[in-house]
Amino acid sequence: MVSVEEALREIARGAQEIIPVEELKKKLESGRQLVIKLGMDPTAPDIHLGHTVILNKLRTFQNLGHKVVLIIGDFTASVGDPSGKNATRPQLSREQIMANAKTYADQAFKVLDKDKTEIRYNSEWLSKLGAEGTIRLASKLTVARMLEREDFTKRYQSGQPIAIHEFLYPLFQGYDSVALHADVELGGTDQKFNLLMGRELQKDDGQEPQCVLMMPLLVGLDGVKKMSKSAHNYIGVDEPANEMFGKVMSLSDELMWSYYDLLSFRPLTEIEELKRKCASGEMNPRDAKMELGREIVARYHGKEAGDEAVQGFINQFAKGALPEDIPEFTFEASLGLPNMFKEAGLVSSTSEALRMFKQNAVKCDGTVITDPKAPVELGCRVYQVGKRRFARITVK
Amino acid sequence: MVSVEEALREIARGAQEIIPVEELKKKLESGRQLVIKLGMDPTAPDIHLGHTVILNKLRTFQNLGHKVVLIIGDFTASVGDPSGKNATRPQLSREQIMANAKTYADQAFKVLDKDKTEIRYNSEWLSKLGAEGTIRLASKLTVARMLEREDFTKRYQSGQPIAIHEFLYPLFQGYDSVALHADVELGGTDQKFNLLMGRELQKDDGQEPQCVLMMPLLVGLDGVKKMSKSAHNYIGVDEPANEMFGKVMSLSDELMWSYYDLLSFRPLTEIEELKRKCASGEMNPRDAKMELGREIVARYHGKEAGDEAVQGFINQFAKGALPEDIPEFTFEASLGLPNMFKEAGLVSSTSEALRMFKQNAVKCDGTVITDPKAPVELGCRVYQVGKRRFARITVK
Repeated sequence: MVSVEEALREIARGAQEIIPVEELKKKLESGRQLVIKLGMDPTAPDIHLGHTVILNKLRTFQNLGHKVVLIIGDFTASVGDPSGKNATRPQLSREQIMANAKTYADQAFKVLDKDKTEIRYNSEWLSKLGAEGTIRLASKLTVARMLEREDFTKRYQSGQPIAIHEFLYPLFQGYDSVALHADVELGGTDQKFNLLMGRELQKDDGQEPQCVLMMPLLVGLDGVKKMSKSAHNYIGVDEPANEMFGKVMSLSDELMWSYYDLLSFRPLTEIEELKRKCASGEMNPRDAKMELGREIVARYHGKEAGDEAVQGFINQFAKGALPEDIPEFTFEASLGLPNMFKEAGLVSSTSEALRMFKQNAVKCDGTVITDPKAPVELGCRVYQVGKRRFARITVK
Repeated sequence: MVSVEEALREIARGAQEIIPVEELKKKLESGRQLVIKLGMDPTAPDIHLGHTVILNKLRTFQNLGHKVVLIIGDFTASVGDPSGKNATRPQLSREQIMANAKTYADQAFKVLDKDKTEIRYNSEWLSKLGAEGTIRLASKLTVARMLEREDFTKRYQSGQPIAIHEFLYPLFQGYDSVALHADVELGGTDQKFNLLMGRELQKDDGQEPQCVLMMPLLVGLDGVKKMSKSAHNYIGVDEPANEMFGKVMSLSDELMWSYYDLLSFRPLTEIEELKRKCASGEMNPRDAKMELGREIVARYHGKEAGDEAVQGFINQFAKGALPEDIPEFTFEASLGLPNMFKEAGLVSSTSEALRMFKQNAVKCDGTVITDPKAPVELGCRVYQVGKRRFARITVK
């Protein structure tokens, strides 16, 4: 059993904001199994690493003994956007919704503990509301308050139409918390308004209101926009190991640290150590990136897959810019690089070899080597001298 | 059979606005029995003359062969104003709603033709909408458009709260027109926004949209505010004949003409003639007011009651400001006013009588007489000279 303080520290790790943290502490102190709510959008069932920032946090709650409830928003998905103006709210058939929910759950269970997860469909309580209940729900908030939501403010001020039903959707989401008696709701920082709605409606209903835990948004591969399918800047949890790994390796160094902060399960001290080493030049950031890739691939494809992805990447990376047919040479033992290059026809003489080293024109598996006396690595390596001369050299 | 032009003239009489008049003409030309809609608020079942401005117009449509549908707004009345901020929208029980609807209908049938009137409860279609239908309905209009409604504009700009469900009510009212396939909806000029809503929703539904006929608001007895129960400035159609008549007599002359325009069934030429006579001094406006009172009382209590109210008022009015015991005199024939006054002790001499005439200090039944040679009216009259001298003089 961890202490409430430890639990709170684990929960708060990486979180942008917890509202209000004292209430969350009290809930944890109560010793009850808390109900942790996450709403799922059934129009976009493919989970990417951006979603896992929150799923990982749910897993933290499960590890602490609490129950996660995934809400499938089938009710509003079955209505869609009747004004037809919001492409992200297509109307889905019951079959599509069920299929999407299954897809989502299959992926979510790569992170979540199935035994401590409940899946609920919000049509269960929302379709019972009727027109009367919808009126009562709509009476809970004023137009002015709703227009304070950032995106509504912008659209209203810029004269873009907001259909009136759009004001109902945050209320329905909030009502899900009432129906569930949720203790904590998780979401991205862009969901603050909607998350707090549940809190207000629960208070209005006389319930102990939920706490709200907001995680930062994971920036996508482009380094600019929030990770999303529509922005084509995502890493899906169902992607093959090598693609997943390759995408991690394509991150900028700066973005890599943000991924470490939001996605890695390593102790914070370890991550700090990696940062320090890369900053001081003790470690190549590419290697830190490979370790991140290894951890993420291992999470979704198993440890072996993580290790294979690293090796595969190294091999592929090394071969990256190579011509079709490269002459192959095998040496029974190391002759030293300059001599080996001469034997393999990469240089006409060892003095040319030394000159090429000075010009930073020598690479081993894509990495520049500047020291002609560097120990020759065993195994198969691709050497490149200048722009066009390659040799695949195996040293036994 | 009246021509379409005649029908249109009757319909347009007294109307503030018809939108659009060409479409109404087309509907009349079609020869169909049109569906004329009026919404009834079940929270305020007592009908006063303000309401009858519109009921009379419905009667005109019935006289032309069309069908009136009274919508009892039981659906929203059963929900009320869940925010509790709108005192004019109390939540009513089914029993209260039914009782109020009956009260309303009983009174409305004093004006309407029962055989050409249908009564419908809007819960019939609104409760079937469910939350889904409500969302679809709410998607038909934008927040910006709704905020253009005058009262919403004012409240929003002045920072007064508007609860979101208040945006749903105009949509429900409009949906009533869709459910009914209404051809014409009647209302006061303050209802323009809501009346046009039905038009829009019908178009959206692919129906031939209703026309909208707006009647001016009848000003209450105070001459300032719209007639309403809450302003205590109304004449109820269920009030006793004498009260009704007395309230008409209490109108200012100016207000009387507005009541003639909006409430009288007399031909317009007759009303113009009355106006001319009063303006030229040929007729005492009080007498025109009594004729209006007679017509209105007769409408709700029968012809005899109208005539009795007039006579009763004359008697009471004549006795109105009089002292307890007035000396009584009877003359077999007229002596001329000055001599009669002298005989009855109202003046000490005929020259004093002439002086009092000059000072406008002579009244017959409360009305000032300035001509000493005016013909003496037969029957029993109360004469007053100066402030304190009275005599009841009967001339046979």
